[in-house]
Amino acid sequence: VTGRELSYGVVAPPGEPPRCAVRLGDEAIDLDALARAGRLGDLPDGVFAGPNLNPFLALGAPAWREVRDRLPELVETAPRLPLDDVRMPVAIGDYVDFYASLEHATNLGRLFRPGSEPLLPNWRHLPVGYHGRAGTVVVSGTPIRRPRGQRPTYGPTEQLDIELELGFVVGGPPNPLGEPVPVAAAAERVFGCVLVNDWSARDIQRWEYQPLGPFLGKSFATSISAWVVPLDALARVPAPVQDPPPLEYLRTEGDWALDVALEVELNGAVISRTNARGLYWTFPQMLAHLTANGAVARPGDLFASGTISGATPGSEGSLIELGRPFLEDGDTVVLRGASLGEVRGTVTPAGAPPRTGGR
Amino acid sequence: VTGRELSYGVVAPPGEPPRCAVRLGDEAIDLDALARAGRLGDLPDGVFAGPNLNPFLALGAPAWREVRDRLPELVETAPRLPLDDVRMPVAIGDYVDFYASLEHATNLGRLFRPGSEPLLPNWRHLPVGYHGRAGTVVVSGTPIRRPRGQRPTYGPTEQLDIELELGFVVGGPPNPLGEPVPVAAAAERVFGCVLVNDWSARDIQRWEYQPLGPFLGKSFATSISAWVVPLDALARVPAPVQDPPPLEYLRTEGDWALDVALEVELNGAVISRTNARGLYWTFPQMLAHLTANGAVARPGDLFASGTISGATPGSEGSLIELGRPFLEDGDTVVLRGASLGEVRGTVTPAGAPPRTGGR
Repeated sequence: VTGRELSYGVVAPPGEPPRCAVRLGDEAIDLDALARAGRLGDLPDGVFAGPNLNPFLALGAPAWREVRDRLPELVETAPRLPLDDVRMPVAIGDYVDFYASLEHATNLGRLFRPGSEPLLPNWRHLPVGYHGRAGTVVVSGTPIRRPRGQRPTYGPTEQLDIELELGFVVGGPPNPLGEPVPVAAAAERVFGCVLVNDWSARDIQRWEYQPLGPFLGKSFATSISAWVVPLDALARVPAPVQDPPPLEYLRTEGDWALDVALEVELNGAVISRTNARGLYWTFPQMLAHLTANGAVARPGDLFASGTISGATPGSEGSLIELGRPFLEDGDTVVLRGASLGEVRGTVTPAGAPPRTGGR
Repeated sequence: VTGRELSYGVVAPPGEPPRCAVRLGDEAIDLDALARAGRLGDLPDGVFAGPNLNPFLALGAPAWREVRDRLPELVETAPRLPLDDVRMPVAIGDYVDFYASLEHATNLGRLFRPGSEPLLPNWRHLPVGYHGRAGTVVVSGTPIRRPRGQRPTYGPTEQLDIELELGFVVGGPPNPLGEPVPVAAAAERVFGCVLVNDWSARDIQRWEYQPLGPFLGKSFATSISAWVVPLDALARVPAPVQDPPPLEYLRTEGDWALDVALEVELNGAVISRTNARGLYWTFPQMLAHLTANGAVARPGDLFASGTISGATPGSEGSLIELGRPFLEDGDTVVLRGASLGEVRGTVTPAGAPPRTGGR
């Protein structure tokens, strides 16, 4: 084991409150116990004692490296926790979803705006994105209830879809309001990565999304994998060439993409294989762009890539692009990524409609 | 004084940590001191001791009424706090901004999509909205730094605007994921109202907003008034008739709007007067719609109405609609609402551009 490989999450031991842990095969290492015993260096009291990683995220990259470097020698003797009750790893502040795959943006433009240019004029100039609902980001394994909505009559969605995405979790001291994070400094603010399933109700989305963007067609649930994998654990390759070259505030030397093989499994069968290396916009560019207007990025913020689709049939990241039927109740979707584990969800039937009438 | 009139906020006395308070003229009543003395009934320990109202919001409407009913007799003898350091009253979970004024949606559609139908087909069927950035909602008085962004070259916005809005703060136990809040029960989840200035950079917004909606043109700052006014303190009138009638999940008997006179002041001169009673969609409809897909509304979530514009010249809620020049550095904007106080902000010059280059 090297510290670099270890992923971070939150585990509740039987009858005890949840605390932070790193995964080790079928068990986890109790980070709170290690920290209390003084074996992780000079950390603030209780940094791993709470129900999420946020206090650790807030410490920033030097502390992350310090813990990572100390862990390998502690693995043998560290207190273990069972994985029976793995919780949401992060209290998410703001959740931003980008649209960074050229292939996906082109495919969806064609489907949602037939007859017009699929890629809008701004797409190659900035990482297009929007804010999603932080309060409905759930951990892998959470059942996904089929949402109701206007399609445009009100009822359970008939077009429940998935979106295969990569997410990154922000940490470090927040930039002051009004002060952008330079693109060359952005990677230092990225703690690690998760897999993201951005569940989507296409009928609701199509009816509601103009002019202010996706809303209830997305906000019913977004699943993330339970273990946050440090950015350093993932292989890098040169990022795709951008044409036209990006504006200066988005430009770095040595742009990299993450070389993460990805797959979508539906009811036990793999239906798509792709790789995150094809994303047009890089993670540092997303963070630099998001803060380019002075917006604060707080520890615990989640950025997602948008659907990752490849250029060839069978490499698309959503059912609508794959040309497959939408999800049925009882369907189970598992997204997997090399070194990232999985994010899993099973569709449950729509609930009763809300009570109506009265004052 | 009746308890109904009192508004809630957070105050830091000199050299002490912030705690919850209610405003009383030029001072505030220390709610934490009252609660510790047992004078506010049977409340959880420390509910007013923290830096925001969220623990109190979470208790729900019965506790809000209990405190409200006890306060009038305590006013005389309650410990007072100075108003020198008034803080952000709420830790906002998710911030949703609607588009509920027919006049504003029509005006903006005309400006942003000239030559096509200004009101899109969905507008009269659902309260159109989007998620904003919770982490950049700031309290009244916070300076607003002119944002940079793609316009489409990168630089300080040349079209800095305001949006006059009414916001409401959600409380009560959250609805379980997957279970909508019925429209008839929605008002019970609304703790109170604030004024909202949704600062907007129109040049950035125009270039970026398709197809996923407003993003960096809005996310640099949103100001709210410091004192949350309980919903019961505000006068109600019958809501405007909706045509076509809304779907059943959005329909209640006795729909009401808030009769709140509003004004926009720029550098000491009132430039617009309007009233919140003209909003097409009601607050209960916004909350019922937001949760209609099963999304959770958490205590501390902020909902804003969208710009409030009237039908007559001089009653519009933004500079672009008023046909006025955009904001200059040093300009001060104050939004006022009857019983709601004010939200104030002064524009400061853009900061230095982010460092560029490097790896």
